[in-house]
Amino acid sequence: MHDALQEEKVFKDPVHHSIYVQEPTIWKLINTPEFQRLRRIRQLGTSYLTFHGAEHSRFSHSLGVYEITRKIISQFERNRYVDWPQEEKLLSLCASLLHDVGHGPFSHSLEQIFGTDHELWTAEIILGDTEVNRVLREVEPEFPNKVAAVIRKKYEKPIVVSLVSSQLDADRMDYLLRDAYFTGVNYGTFDLDRILRVLRPYQGNIVVKESGMHAVEDYLMSRYQMYWQIYFHPVTRSSEIVLRQIFHRAGHLFRTGFRFRFMLPPLHALLEGNLTLSHYLKLDEAMAQTAFGQWVDEDDELLSDLCRRFLNRQLYKYAPLSPEDSGWLEEVSKEWLRIGLQPEYHLEVDTPIDSPYDIYKPGALPDGKEKPPILLLGEQDRLTEISMKSDIIQSIAGLHRGKYYVYYPEDLVRPHAHRLSPETRNKLSI
Amino acid sequence: MHDALQEEKVFKDPVHHSIYVQEPTIWKLINTPEFQRLRRIRQLGTSYLTFHGAEHSRFSHSLGVYEITRKIISQFERNRYVDWPQEEKLLSLCASLLHDVGHGPFSHSLEQIFGTDHELWTAEIILGDTEVNRVLREVEPEFPNKVAAVIRKKYEKPIVVSLVSSQLDADRMDYLLRDAYFTGVNYGTFDLDRILRVLRPYQGNIVVKESGMHAVEDYLMSRYQMYWQIYFHPVTRSSEIVLRQIFHRAGHLFRTGFRFRFMLPPLHALLEGNLTLSHYLKLDEAMAQTAFGQWVDEDDELLSDLCRRFLNRQLYKYAPLSPEDSGWLEEVSKEWLRIGLQPEYHLEVDTPIDSPYDIYKPGALPDGKEKPPILLLGEQDRLTEISMKSDIIQSIAGLHRGKYYVYYPEDLVRPHAHRLSPETRNKLSI
Amino acid sequence: MHDALQEEKVFKDPVHHSIYVQEPTIWKLINTPEFQRLRRIRQLGTSYLTFHGAEHSRFSHSLGVYEITRKIISQFERNRYVDWPQEEKLLSLCASLLHDVGHGPFSHSLEQIFGTDHELWTAEIILGDTEVNRVLREVEPEFPNKVAAVIRKKYEKPIVVSLVSSQLDADRMDYLLRDAYFTGVNYGTFDLDRILRVLRPYQGNIVVKESGMHAVEDYLMSRYQMYWQIYFHPVTRSSEIVLRQIFHRAGHLFRTGFRFRFMLPPLHALLEGNLTLSHYLKLDEAMAQTAFGQWVDEDDELLSDLCRRFLNRQLYKYAPLSPEDSGWLEEVSKEWLRIGLQPEYHLEVDTPIDSPYDIYKPGALPDGKEKPPILLLGEQDRLTEISMKSDIIQSIAGLHRGKYYVYYPEDLVRPHAHRLSPETRNKLSI
Amino acid sequence: MHDALQEEKVFKDPVHHSIYVQEPTIWKLINTPEFQRLRRIRQLGTSYLTFHGAEHSRFSHSLGVYEITRKIISQFERNRYVDWPQEEKLLSLCASLLHDVGHGPFSHSLEQIFGTDHELWTAEIILGDTEVNRVLREVEPEFPNKVAAVIRKKYEKPIVVSLVSSQLDADRMDYLLRDAYFTGVNYGTFDLDRILRVLRPYQGNIVVKESGMHAVEDYLMSRYQMYWQIYFHPVTRSSEIVLRQIFHRAGHLFRTGFRFRFMLPPLHALLEGNLTLSHYLKLDEAMAQTAFGQWVDEDDELLSDLCRRFLNRQLYKYAPLSPEDSGWLEEVSKEWLRIGLQPEYHLEVDTPIDSPYDIYKPGALPDGKEKPPILLLGEQDRLTEISMKSDIIQSIAGLHRGKYYVYYPEDLVRPHAHRLSPETRNKLSI
Repeated sequence: MHDALQEEKVFKDPVHHSIYVQEPTIWKLINTPEFQRLRRIRQLGTSYLTFHGAEHSRFSHSLGVYEITRKIISQFERNRYVDWPQEEKLLSLCASLLHDVGHGPFSHSLEQIFGTDHELWTAEIILGDTEVNRVLREVEPEFPNKVAAVIRKKYEKPIVVSLVSSQLDADRMDYLLRDAYFTGVNYGTFDLDRILRVLRPYQGNIVVKESGMHAVEDYLMSRYQMYWQIYFHPVTRSSEIVLRQIFHRAGHLFRTGFRFRFMLPPLHALLEGNLTLSHYLKLDEAMAQTAFGQWVDEDDELLSDLCRRFLNRQLYKYAPLSPEDSGWLEEVSKEWLRIGLQPEYHLEVDTPIDSPYDIYKPGALPDGKEKPPILLLGEQDRLTEISMKSDIIQSIAGLHRGKYYVYYPEDLVRPHAHRLSPETRNKLSI
Repeated sequence: MHDALQEEKVFKDPVHHSIYVQEPTIWKLINTPEFQRLRRIRQLGTSYLTFHGAEHSRFSHSLGVYEITRKIISQFERNRYVDWPQEEKLLSLCASLLHDVGHGPFSHSLEQIFGTDHELWTAEIILGDTEVNRVLREVEPEFPNKVAAVIRKKYEKPIVVSLVSSQLDADRMDYLLRDAYFTGVNYGTFDLDRILRVLRPYQGNIVVKESGMHAVEDYLMSRYQMYWQIYFHPVTRSSEIVLRQIFHRAGHLFRTGFRFRFMLPPLHALLEGNLTLSHYLKLDEAMAQTAFGQWVDEDDELLSDLCRRFLNRQLYKYAPLSPEDSGWLEEVSKEWLRIGLQPEYHLEVDTPIDSPYDIYKPGALPDGKEKPPILLLGEQDRLTEISMKSDIIQSIAGLHRGKYYVYYPEDLVRPHAHRLSPETRNKLSI
Repeated sequence: MHDALQEEKVFKDPVHHSIYVQEPTIWKLINTPEFQRLRRIRQLGTSYLTFHGAEHSRFSHSLGVYEITRKIISQFERNRYVDWPQEEKLLSLCASLLHDVGHGPFSHSLEQIFGTDHELWTAEIILGDTEVNRVLREVEPEFPNKVAAVIRKKYEKPIVVSLVSSQLDADRMDYLLRDAYFTGVNYGTFDLDRILRVLRPYQGNIVVKESGMHAVEDYLMSRYQMYWQIYFHPVTRSSEIVLRQIFHRAGHLFRTGFRFRFMLPPLHALLEGNLTLSHYLKLDEAMAQTAFGQWVDEDDELLSDLCRRFLNRQLYKYAPLSPEDSGWLEEVSKEWLRIGLQPEYHLEVDTPIDSPYDIYKPGALPDGKEKPPILLLGEQDRLTEISMKSDIIQSIAGLHRGKYYVYYPEDLVRPHAHRLSPETRNKLSI
Repeated sequence: MHDALQEEKVFKDPVHHSIYVQEPTIWKLINTPEFQRLRRIRQLGTSYLTFHGAEHSRFSHSLGVYEITRKIISQFERNRYVDWPQEEKLLSLCASLLHDVGHGPFSHSLEQIFGTDHELWTAEIILGDTEVNRVLREVEPEFPNKVAAVIRKKYEKPIVVSLVSSQLDADRMDYLLRDAYFTGVNYGTFDLDRILRVLRPYQGNIVVKESGMHAVEDYLMSRYQMYWQIYFHPVTRSSEIVLRQIFHRAGHLFRTGFRFRFMLPPLHALLEGNLTLSHYLKLDEAMAQTAFGQWVDEDDELLSDLCRRFLNRQLYKYAPLSPEDSGWLEEVSKEWLRIGLQPEYHLEVDTPIDSPYDIYKPGALPDGKEKPPILLLGEQDRLTEISMKSDIIQSIAGLHRGKYYVYYPEDLVRPHAHRLSPETRNKLSI
């Protein structure tokens, strides 16, 4: 198994049909405990509570990103584009496979509460005392550093970085297609073959042939639809809020000396704020759910209630907010206290600004955090930023008008409805 | 939420596109903790270790069985077939939704080791002190008993039973399509609309119009392909063996007084053999996986090794066996002991006879355990058992020629290869 | 066959899976010679020369429009919307089935050259001495007039008109899905079920529930993509130009007394400008192609060459034009004459303004020719024109920036390349 | 266009997504008039009268066969199988592209009536004075002969022949997938990628790796389903009968000196039995349909009626026959005469033995006409004929139990129903 691959390995994949592995290094990386652990982290966090098909893992997504990267490079090679640095193939494949290896359970929620950072963990898994590191070092001693540099967008050749991480990268292409497949919607689909065919390396970047402008529009519109229909679905946001509140409450209890009946070392380290790599690697969604199942029986009523809500999908209700509602929200806080609820846990306003997603940004910000724009390669090798040519893209480039909602536990509020103001009753339709 | 449904509820489903809920009882059942728990039980057990897409849960399958049942009944109603007892609609829908509600984590493996029986648990959930029971009793006091009777195939009207449980039932139709979708193969697909159109109620049974014979052939061939390609895949069998060995070892340790560092009440009850309903409901796959993660650090080397194998997908290897190999297998047992392995845990022969699946059986066995045959309704309302008319079905009806494999931990064997007999080295290609 | 339908008729359809016919009138209409004739008219004219799968006929499209209309009405009925006039069901179904019955071969090209109008022919088929008329009159004597009125958008109840003909009508929904299916692209697909679910009748119109805004955006983006990728593909335009030139030349020859070796009465009537209904009904694409095959052997070299080009797919080449090229185009005309070509036939500038397609227009023009805008039904039953709420739709609403191309027979030009100006050689890449 | 290909050409195809052309010879062949003519010949003859989507042409099928052949060879090359003669790539591709180039309109019907043979015409197109021949000769003077030899199964290397023509060839794989796609059924689909992966060249043949047995079963079952559901659909047979009767009648009239008002040289040559290649190439389905449209107005009532039936889809009705019905059939003939019908034209018994299709035959017949069996390559390179290992295939290998039907013009018979015997009325349900 750990010898050189005598024959191609093939994974059956619902999105790409087949995923082909030729290099022994890739095969060995897939078989490391750190990579297998991604089977226990869902790709879409709590979205399965809204779309029951969305139970797919980061394991399958990571294989998919690898496969798309493999296909892009294969196209570059078939066309013998001189701007593609052929010697970087294995590096690109490894980086694409491992780009998400540091994700923890319900990553975004956890990061908000505890300040963990999956990108740092990714680096630590690649550079630390792990099987992944050992497999990479077999290639050459410097190889782990290179892979980490690509994922951190610090590698010296930006073209390698942009394969894995740009506004038109293998990561996004796979997750749009995969999330659409597993949720069962069809608006996330776009023509992957067509996109792959119009990419080409050019002067250290990956650009789009001008004839591919409509293909990119199609891809960005899929992003737009998935953004609003799936990633930002208010029921999903509600489940994330409940999840965050669980960690928020557990953290508060821990800091105030609460004695948990059920605790495991990785959770303890998480709450204490001193996670080691070995703890982090044990912290998967199975453990989180098991803890919630046990915490239902803890003496803290609030923690128990939140855990029960999450497991039984008795989420917070939501109501739309308009900008003028900020005054009213302050009132609601007071009303909540009056009826015995805790606004800190029982009232949350969700703003799309929290979102880790954006559709498209034409310009890079000075802090270097932004991804470079998508460039069209036109006649006489002229490069143009795509929103200069596409009205569609221009119209969505700046879009971030999200809807605001207020979330709250309706079942706890309703018995006290008669004590609420008419405005509150009206806005919450109680 | 718990009032009557003012408007139809719609679930987005990758297999059926949409799943429609009109009855408040169905809506309430879906929202019970017992039904929501099915989100934490995978539909295909360990198959996700072979086909990485197969991470779907019994929750989505149960909704799918409900939806197919709803469609069949809707067809019966549209055609105003007098042989369909219209008053049994809600009963049929509830039974189809709940038929799998008693499944535990990795059901088949657990049942083999501990003798639990998911059908008994289903009955207990329906009849016991649960939310499911409360929702059903709202319909009428006797309703839980009726639902349980349908699922136990004891209900007085066999036509209701056969909707949920027969050789052409909503359960099988959904799991074939769903498992094919999530694994990403296309040989499990058949034309559901076409099958639904040829079913009709007739004298207390559901029969197939003669023009639908080829449609049924197509459906049975899908079963046949899924059986060999997915359900019986040797890698999946290998992962089930490792899983069974974990429980086997844990049970042995428990009985011999081993002190587990990590234990939870439901697991303790499972090992002790006195599970209560409340424990059983907590026992989901998240808990099993969390236990395995902790047991990696137990002092028993064998248990630790098995758990590590399961989590990191370092499964047992397999080699094909022929009927003449029984003598050799006895020798191998001795060789295993010689090199320090325990045949009880490190050597397992898997026979397809263990399988919970069959393709089609034309006749019911006298013990009443068998499902009744599929009947074609021909001219002059003559009924014929389908394999009398279809050569294809006749040819697969008796098929159960499975392949035999021997499974073993190759990595533990290989270092001692020089101490094995040439025959063993040859058969295991070591 | 012509009795009342004892059981539902089902057509297998690649786009809608099944098409259901319950009313005898619909069944009889489908079986009239006038409707069956649509099998000999391609839905996408010459597009099959660009996308070889696009060989589907107006017959299948017409069935599809009928089926979508049936589904919309069925949804209205299930929801018991009081604003839907139930008595208009059969009228709506007939109008949707027949809305394209007057199309002739390569309609748009023919209409440009000979001024025929498929809408007039549709009316004549419905009102004239035809089987279609006889079937409709069986319903009631005024029924043909009603059907014609709906198709001509003059029917007294605009809600019936808008089912068949609006910016979100059954016609467009079917052709987008169907043309995408047969060409094999996936950017024309949108979620039909989702669109159908958000439509509702309201005060004499069909409006969209506000929650359906993104669904409509998705549908309009599909239109946008199909427009640029399929309907306006320059190779398709080139084949239309060659086709138009055939008719243009044949008309010229006819008017100047040319003696055709091959002529058939319907073609003669077409060229003479006095087509009767009976001639028109014989004029299908098979006849046009047969004529072209024969005209290859006519004595007029130009006609022969054009026919040969069309049949053998040796189309005109194209080169992009910019607004500044108008001066150069005049020069090219002169150059063409110099090398013995006829600019009238050998040089054509194609502008998208000719297009029968648009994406979306928010306002109706005063001449009443425009289709009414799409309205969102929001809270408190407030209606809003959709582009007021959707930035995406606003951005595409005004779009008609098409690309200009010049088309010419490269094979006739190339041998004279040395006699062309450098600018011409450069622009045409010769 | 006729220079060497600077970049890969890509055709959008609904079945294979993309079809890739790299060799200039292939590109030039596609652009010959003889190959373009296949756009005017439907792949499934009259099946579009049963399944309205089945309007696809032999042009798209021929491209598909080419593409599958290309993929098989590419797999052989990637795996560097020594048994594959690499120098035969272009020959294989050309033969696969051209294997159907000699098909005429409604081939099978025409061949039955006039004894034409599309295989002879294919050879003549390849070897005669055609563009196809000129393109092939550019490769080398002997190349046309080689291509013709492959198609005639006489080429010296049987492995090249079996790519294009065997029981598991590119031709069948494409038509099953394509016909399923365009008719809209899903039982013709099988996993093409999986089949391609298990093929390998071995000692002058293409064999199947033993692990691929179930994949071949799946493919053969698709054939079986398509055979009964599509190719042998009685409505399609009815339309073929009407078509054959048209040619039968026209031939009879021609031989008895009837003066046709409408006639074209290729039709004349067909009826006279002295078709030249140039006539044959003009004889497409457009011409046949145009002739039928004109012949509706001929003075022969029978011919006129048959043409009208075909164009308006007023086909013959059918009733099932059992082996005991032969006596009755003789009686019906007499009854037909009694009521003024002509049994020669108005009564036809269709037997599946006419079928050009078979599912699978394990043995080659001595006359060499049969295709060689499918061989499995097992351990120690042992070859086994597949039905020896697969019960499924064994059960379908001998199957040819077709249904017999009698076809007749019900509308002409019904007015005389009272003059028919009770048995006839009963059997025909009149």
